[in-house]
Amino acid sequence: MDLNIKTNDKDHLDIGGADALDLVEEFGSPIYAIDEVRIRENYNKFYNSFSKYYPDFKVFYACKANTNLAVMKILESEGCCVDTVSPGEVYISRKLGFSPDRILFTGNNITDEELKMVHDMGVILNIDSVSALNRLSEVVNPKGFKISFRVNPMVGAGHHEHTITGGVMSKFGIMDNEASEVYAMAKDLGFDPIGMHSHIGSGILDPEPFKLAIGSTMDIAGKVHEDTGIDFEFVDFGGGVGVPYTPEEKALDLDHFASENISFFKEKLSEYNMGKPTMYLEPGRYLVADAVTLLVKVNSVKQSYRKFIGVNAGFNTLLRPSMYDSYHHIVDASKMSAPITQEVDVAGNVCESGDLFARDRPLPDVEEGDVLGILNAGAYGFTMASNYNSRPLPAEVLVNNGEATLVRKAQTFDDLLEGQIIPEHLE
Amino acid sequence: MDLNIKTNDKDHLDIGGADALDLVEEFGSPIYAIDEVRIRENYNKFYNSFSKYYPDFKVFYACKANTNLAVMKILESEGCCVDTVSPGEVYISRKLGFSPDRILFTGNNITDEELKMVHDMGVILNIDSVSALNRLSEVVNPKGFKISFRVNPMVGAGHHEHTITGGVMSKFGIMDNEASEVYAMAKDLGFDPIGMHSHIGSGILDPEPFKLAIGSTMDIAGKVHEDTGIDFEFVDFGGGVGVPYTPEEKALDLDHFASENISFFKEKLSEYNMGKPTMYLEPGRYLVADAVTLLVKVNSVKQSYRKFIGVNAGFNTLLRPSMYDSYHHIVDASKMSAPITQEVDVAGNVCESGDLFARDRPLPDVEEGDVLGILNAGAYGFTMASNYNSRPLPAEVLVNNGEATLVRKAQTFDDLLEGQIIPEHLE
Repeated sequence: MDLNIKTNDKDHLDIGGADALDLVEEFGSPIYAIDEVRIRENYNKFYNSFSKYYPDFKVFYACKANTNLAVMKILESEGCCVDTVSPGEVYISRKLGFSPDRILFTGNNITDEELKMVHDMGVILNIDSVSALNRLSEVVNPKGFKISFRVNPMVGAGHHEHTITGGVMSKFGIMDNEASEVYAMAKDLGFDPIGMHSHIGSGILDPEPFKLAIGSTMDIAGKVHEDTGIDFEFVDFGGGVGVPYTPEEKALDLDHFASENISFFKEKLSEYNMGKPTMYLEPGRYLVADAVTLLVKVNSVKQSYRKFIGVNAGFNTLLRPSMYDSYHHIVDASKMSAPITQEVDVAGNVCESGDLFARDRPLPDVEEGDVLGILNAGAYGFTMASNYNSRPLPAEVLVNNGEATLVRKAQTFDDLLEGQIIPEHLE
Repeated sequence: MDLNIKTNDKDHLDIGGADALDLVEEFGSPIYAIDEVRIRENYNKFYNSFSKYYPDFKVFYACKANTNLAVMKILESEGCCVDTVSPGEVYISRKLGFSPDRILFTGNNITDEELKMVHDMGVILNIDSVSALNRLSEVVNPKGFKISFRVNPMVGAGHHEHTITGGVMSKFGIMDNEASEVYAMAKDLGFDPIGMHSHIGSGILDPEPFKLAIGSTMDIAGKVHEDTGIDFEFVDFGGGVGVPYTPEEKALDLDHFASENISFFKEKLSEYNMGKPTMYLEPGRYLVADAVTLLVKVNSVKQSYRKFIGVNAGFNTLLRPSMYDSYHHIVDASKMSAPITQEVDVAGNVCESGDLFARDRPLPDVEEGDVLGILNAGAYGFTMASNYNSRPLPAEVLVNNGEATLVRKAQTFDDLLEGQIIPEHLE
C-alpha cells in the first residue's frame, strides 16, 4: 500500500524515528505528531517534479491545511511560497518571515477592511468577484497595483461535494464568459492585472480532471490575452493533488502527472501566443497530510449491539470523519503486526452518536490502554479542531529524525474561559 | 410562524430590546447576540410545564449546547441544574457556582484520570459502559458512592442521523438486556446505584418518540428494580426537545407534551411499584437555541451561475448548516419588512464550496452592507466554532431588556499563535 506507515523494532508505530508510545508517554494524548523530514520530502518531490519540466514554476503551500507555525517554518526554509485565504493566514505568514512576494491571497467574501489590510501587507491578491474588485478600487489606490482574478473553470473534481470548487454550483471565482470584461474593467480602474487563478477541488488522484482544468483555464486566459492585450506574468492552477487515505488507493504518479500537465500547459501557451508566464500550483494536503499522525489512547472496549473501541479524542479533535465521512486509516500503534481479528467501530468521546472515527474497521484485538494512530491527519486536522464539549485543544509535537519537541501546548480548562466576561448584574 | 423574530420601529431586527444594527455598529461582526430574558422565559416555561404535573422534577441544562459563562450563570440563577459531558464542562459549572449536587456527568469513552477527576468534584455520574464501571471501581473508593447508568432505550429519534443516540447503531449506554446484571455488578463492587439515564436524540418536536423512550426506559428500570431490589432515587430521560427552525415548523405544545409524558411515567411507576423517584430532564437546545442570533454583515453580492450573498462569517463560526445540512432561518436585519424578491445562496467566507448558510433561500433585495440575522444560533453555535481558515473566534454580546454587554471578546490574530513554540533548529 502507499500509505506512510512505519513500524519500529518494538513492533510500535514509528513517527519520524520516534516511538509513538514514547511520544504519548512523554507528551500525553490526544496529540498530533508531525514528521519534519516527511514534509521536506513531500515538498521537494512536488517542486522537482514540475520544475524539471517547466523551470518558471512556484509552489504556494495552501496553508489552510495546516497553519502550525513549525510546519509553515519548515516549508518557508525550503523556499516554498504560501497561499492564504484570510487576513489571519497572511498575518501568520508575515510573522514567520515569508516576504510579501511569496504570499498569495485568495479570499472569498472578504470585507473592505480585510481587502485594505491584505493590500497594505503587500501580498498578491487573487480577486474573487466583481464586488471585491469595485470595493478594492475604493479602499486602495489602484494605480499600477498588480492583481489577479480567480476564474471558475467550470470543471469540478474532488473527494466530497463540499470541496468541489469549480462548476455552476460554486461560489468561487468570476464566470468564464465574463472574464475579458472583468479584466478590462480592472485595467480601466487603473489596476495592473497580471495573473489568473483557478482551483477545481481537492483530493484528486487522477491527472485527467486536472488536465481539463488546465485546458479550460488556459482557454479563458488565452481569450483574455487576445481581447485585452494583457500579458500574464503567472497562471495559477490552484491545488487539489490528493494523497491515498485508504490502503487500496494508489499514490499519484507525480512525475507522470507533472509531465502530462506541463506539456498540455505549454501547448496552450503557444496556441494563444502567451509567452512564458510563471506556473503556480497550490498544494496543501499533498505536502502535509501524510506527515502527521493523530495519536489517541483506547480507554473503553465496549460490547453493545455493536463493538466499540472508545478513544480519548473526538470530532472536536479531528472533524473529517464526522463531517465529510472521510476515511482515515487507523493502526494499533502498540502492536503493529498483530493480526486483524475483528471489524469494529472506533468511537470518540464527544456526546454525539456521529462521533465515530470509523465504522466496521478491520483491526487487531485492540485493548484498553493501547495507542491508536489515526493516519493522514496533517491536512485539515488541527486546523478544523474546536473546543466542542468544552474539550481543550490538543498538543502538537514535531519529530525531526527521532528528536521530539513540543510545538504547541495543549490547552487547559482555563483557556476555555479566556476572553469571557460575566456582567455585573449576574455576579 | 413560531420562530422568535421581532422587528422594531426602524424596521430592524430587535434582539431583546436592542437594535441588531446598533449591536453590530458597537461591537462589530460576526457576533452572537444573546437575549437574556428569552433564556429565562424558556427555562421557566419548561420547568413549570412538567413540575405542575410532577413536583419531584429537576431540569439539568445540557450545557454542551452553549457553555457561555453568562448563559450558564443566567440558568444557575433560575435554579436550573446542569448536565455535563466532559471534565471541562464540570470545571466551568463549578466555577459558576453550581454545587456538585446540581451537576450530572454523562461522559462517553472517558479516561481513568477523567473519571477520578469528575468523581473527586463530587458530581453525580451516569456511567456509560461496563468498562467505565470497572475502571471507576479501581480509581475511586466505591463504598456507598452513588452512581447511575446510562441505558440504551433502543428507541432513536432526531433531526439528523448523527444525533440519534438510541438504537442498535448507538455507541451510548449499556444494553437494555444487560441492565440488571450491570446494576447487580455495581452493587457487588460496593457502589450505591440510585439512578437511570437514557437519551434518544435531539430536535424532537413530537411527543410520540419521547413516550416510547419513557416506556422503554421505565421497562428497563422496572426490571432492574424487580431483579435487584434497587430503589431508584431518580430516572433521567435525557433531552431532545426541539424548537422550530423553519417558518413551517410548529413549536411543541409543551403543556400537552408534559401532561402526556408525565401521566405515562406515573403509570409505569405504579406498574412496577417504583415509588416516587425524581424525574430529570436535560433540555439543551430548548432553553437556548432561539435566544441567540448570529449577526453577520453582507460584503459581496455576486451574480455567478447562481446568485450568492457573501457574508463575513463561515462554517468556522456556525457549523450546523455545513455539517448537518441544518436549516437556520435568515432575515435581513436592515429591512425586516422588505418583500421577498429572490431565491439566493447565502455564502460564508471559508475557502470551501460547502461553506454555505443556505441554498435557494427566499430573501428580499439584500444589499452589500446589510446585516443578516441567522436565527436559532444559541444551541451548538459558538460551542462548535473553530479557528478554521485562521479566523479568530467571534465575540458574544448579552442583551438584557435593551442593555447590551460584551460577554466574550473576539479573538485577535495573536490568539491564533497562543501556545505555539517554534523549535530552535527552525529559527
